[in-house]
Amino acid sequence: MEQFCAQGFHATSMRDIAGGAGMTVASIYHHFSSKQRILEEIMVSSLRDSVTSTRAAVLDAGSSATAQLRALVASWVGLHIGRQPEALIGASELRGLDESGRTAVDTLRREQARIFYGVVEHGVRTGEFRTAFPRECARGIAAMGAAVASWYEDDGTLSRDEVIERMVQLSLDAAGVEPDATN
Amino acid sequence: MEQFCAQGFHATSMRDIAGGAGMTVASIYHHFSSKQRILEEIMVSSLRDSVTSTRAAVLDAGSSATAQLRALVASWVGLHIGRQPEALIGASELRGLDESGRTAVDTLRREQARIFYGVVEHGVRTGEFRTAFPRECARGIAAMGAAVASWYEDDGTLSRDEVIERMVQLSLDAAGVEPDATN
Repeated sequence: MEQFCAQGFHATSMRDIAGGAGMTVASIYHHFSSKQRILEEIMVSSLRDSVTSTRAAVLDAGSSATAQLRALVASWVGLHIGRQPEALIGASELRGLDESGRTAVDTLRREQARIFYGVVEHGVRTGEFRTAFPRECARGIAAMGAAVASWYEDDGTLSRDEVIERMVQLSLDAAGVEPDATN
Repeated sequence: MEQFCAQGFHATSMRDIAGGAGMTVASIYHHFSSKQRILEEIMVSSLRDSVTSTRAAVLDAGSSATAQLRALVASWVGLHIGRQPEALIGASELRGLDESGRTAVDTLRREQARIFYGVVEHGVRTGEFRTAFPRECARGIAAMGAAVASWYEDDGTLSRDEVIERMVQLSLDAAGVEPDATN
């Protein structure tokens, strides 16, 4: 991950990766048949973690859509804080994947999007969320939270928990939760 | 732009670029001293357009922060619709720039961020926006709008203007504008 972030996937050799990991090139090839497989493993495992964690957070939150959205955004933003490397690689190296790698990534991204949409749609159905545009709202909330990876480190004034709480509050506002219901 | 999108900056040669443009390699070098300069020109000119257009939209909108935010988001989302190539290159090829290119891009990105923050902060001051977190709100609104570039084409069911109107509404919700003030 360090090598891909510093130089980009294309410019990184298996030798660089082996060197950075303190391994021989042969032993890297023992675990991964190609550089593409390493990239795929990084992207797929980080997406899989995120689908698993955010889904669990929603399921643990009870039946209130407001509580579910709180839990979902807290989990999502928590995962993106300190995950600059995965975020950078995920945003910039999709072209490095082959067909099967792209399919795996797309499937997981759609699964992640459905978790957001499911919660927003649930809140609209129960009347907890006033938003007239649940699809765009779900996408917007996911985008706001993911963008935290691009600014969190620059801005050393807030703790992890403070950032999470602010993003939760913003997301509730974007969903159109009544202000008195959010506290 | 086509070549960088299809193959990535690293894998594209000046010969590919010349071929795609129906020019000779020599005439490309007459305009750009290196491939990096072409990348820089793509990124800087698209950021400059966006700073100029969004600033003009805000200044034309009168003194109401709600009207300013509407105009800003409409301009921002309009720029991101159908700009998948610039968005993809901007997100993935920053590593291809040299020091001076990065500085130019960072300066423009900060200028763009200040436009968003200025409008949100103005609305908080006038009491039009209830958000308790103007910085995160400004960043979140920018991120939601920019993400439209990643999904607009997939989703052929909405017109450009419908998407813009939905993103405007979502942004007003995120800023905490009273629902009756937004119509």
